Amino acid sequence: MTKDVIAGIDIGGTKIALALADTNGQMLSLFRFPTKVERGPHRIIENAISEIERMTEEANGTLRGIGVGCGGPLDRQRGLILSPPNLPQWDKFPIIDLLEKRFGVSAVLDNDANAAAMGEHQYGAGLGLRNLVYFTISTGIGGGVIINGEILHGVADGAGEVGHMTVLPNGPLCGCGARGCMEAVCSGTSIARRARERLLTNAQSSMASKVSAAHEVTAQIVAEAAREGDALACEIWNETIYYLSIGVGNIISALAPEAVILGGGVTAVGEQLFAPLRLQVQSLVKMVPAEKITILQAALGGDSGIYGALILGQRALKN
Amino acid sequence: MTKDVIAGIDIGGTKIALALADTNGQMLSLFRFPTKVERGPHRIIENAISEIERMTEEANGTLRGIGVGCGGPLDRQRGLILSPPNLPQWDKFPIIDLLEKRFGVSAVLDNDANAAAMGEHQYGAGLGLRNLVYFTISTGIGGGVIINGEILHGVADGAGEVGHMTVLPNGPLCGCGARGCMEAVCSGTSIARRARERLLTNAQSSMASKVSAAHEVTAQIVAEAAREGDALACEIWNETIYYLSIGVGNIISALAPEAVILGGGVTAVGEQLFAPLRLQVQSLVKMVPAEKITILQAALGGDSGIYGALILGQRALKN
Repeated sequence: MTKDVIAGIDIGGTKIALALADTNGQMLSLFRFPTKVERGPHRIIENAISEIERMTEEANGTLRGIGVGCGGPLDRQRGLILSPPNLPQWDKFPIIDLLEKRFGVSAVLDNDANAAAMGEHQYGAGLGLRNLVYFTISTGIGGGVIINGEILHGVADGAGEVGHMTVLPNGPLCGCGARGCMEAVCSGTSIARRARERLLTNAQSSMASKVSAAHEVTAQIVAEAAREGDALACEIWNETIYYLSIGVGNIISALAPEAVILGGGVTAVGEQLFAPLRLQVQSLVKMVPAEKITILQAALGGDSGIYGALILGQRALKN
Repeated sequence: MTKDVIAGIDIGGTKIALALADTNGQMLSLFRFPTKVERGPHRIIENAISEIERMTEEANGTLRGIGVGCGGPLDRQRGLILSPPNLPQWDKFPIIDLLEKRFGVSAVLDNDANAAAMGEHQYGAGLGLRNLVYFTISTGIGGGVIINGEILHGVADGAGEVGHMTVLPNGPLCGCGARGCMEAVCSGTSIARRARERLLTNAQSSMASKVSAAHEVTAQIVAEAAREGDALACEIWNETIYYLSIGVGNIISALAPEAVILGGGVTAVGEQLFAPLRLQVQSLVKMVPAEKITILQAALGGDSGIYGALILGQRALKN
């Protein structure tokens, strides 16, 4: 006898994660493959469909619902992917329609940061909390706001764009077109950019010896050099923490969530980021008692998104 | 035959508002009297109780529930007022216990900014909306966040402290102890303070001729001189609008509420504030379509809080 299963798909610009779970959300299997964007959305999704069929067969399962997380912009209601920056050919790509027709089950789409927030809420650092805000600090900064256990989508599905709060008035230009967004100051891309710019006039920084060319400087190299005490790297790291604390602090002042959870590549250094961030936030947030302010590292690492996709798959069951 | 009524009490540092409504929340009568803080909380509340008794009698009503809005800090669960800055003698004042014993009905307490947000949501500019954020911009800046039609209280009732979001990194010291809070830059008090400071080196400003002494400069005088084209007043007004737009913009990026509603004395100038504010917010918020960003003036003016207290009174009915 087969058992009912759900599938989750987490579509990223570099890799796609697929997972199968039972209808209670217990993960049964997980598979990743590189996105190879040059192959175009149709071949990539055909590949994902074959793998889900294989996984379902191996689990002796009957597929009942599918959840999909993908970078925005999306048309969530109509189930369309709308040319995200990392998937430029995916223009009005009808992912939900395609999956529903191929599998004959319901599918649900949400953006990847919302999915990651849901994953952390139900499987990770936010387990059992009612209200939390998740930030993913990677090449960009995204987020998800969970109120009363549910993702807040907001007008035009615009909620959760916490990376586009202004943390530095008249600051550097952001990819969104505004100035001084958290993403323009605190993302991995911004950390690396500031290091490269300042290395031009700071040849004695140890960062220079860690790379063969300035363009090879990454946020990871800045963090490593800061741990070793390099003055320029410390300066960049400390200002990153300061502006992160403004964004996180603003969220706490506005929402007083039970936890703010930070994930994404830049947060992988752990306490080098979280210890000073917690102190800085306490110096900015005086209206909520400091001991109630919980700032946590994401517990699922790179898997937050695929776990979130499984939660979307459970939602699809009810459709 | 008498009819069931509820009472609302809005306790402020300068005046107290009392209202009676039918159980559907339709206001029947409204009465205000000066707080006279020097008389102490007990005599002031006795005064309010007598007036409510008189109003109930005049309405031929039977009192069934009471709602109370008051400036924080409060212990909402235990029904205590905890020495708000404008009511320093009200130290652990058991307002709810006192009212419940005197009237033999249930009473509900919330902070005044949350009450005002509820008032605007059910009687004012936010009628029929699911999600909105209310800012009151007065001597200080408070706020209330309504998600799915309900006030978000958050951990330790700390949500809605939108006036303490950082809008100017390392900016002026705020009453809360942090630097650069929206309240420290955009409140009426801050507008007046900046004008006074800069008048010391700008004797040609028309603001100097509007007052007999520098300490008489108010936010209203700055707004009036800015309307008349005074350069210093325009500079202060424009920077106020800019930092307001950061706070309002951050809320929109995080929550994408259907509306942000601004009330309080500083907003009474209307379009002189709202027109440039809307433009500035559009220049900062790029991830939510500009036409979906609704920034509204509070519709109830100084009555938002007392209407909110009536909504709290309706909640008390269900206790």
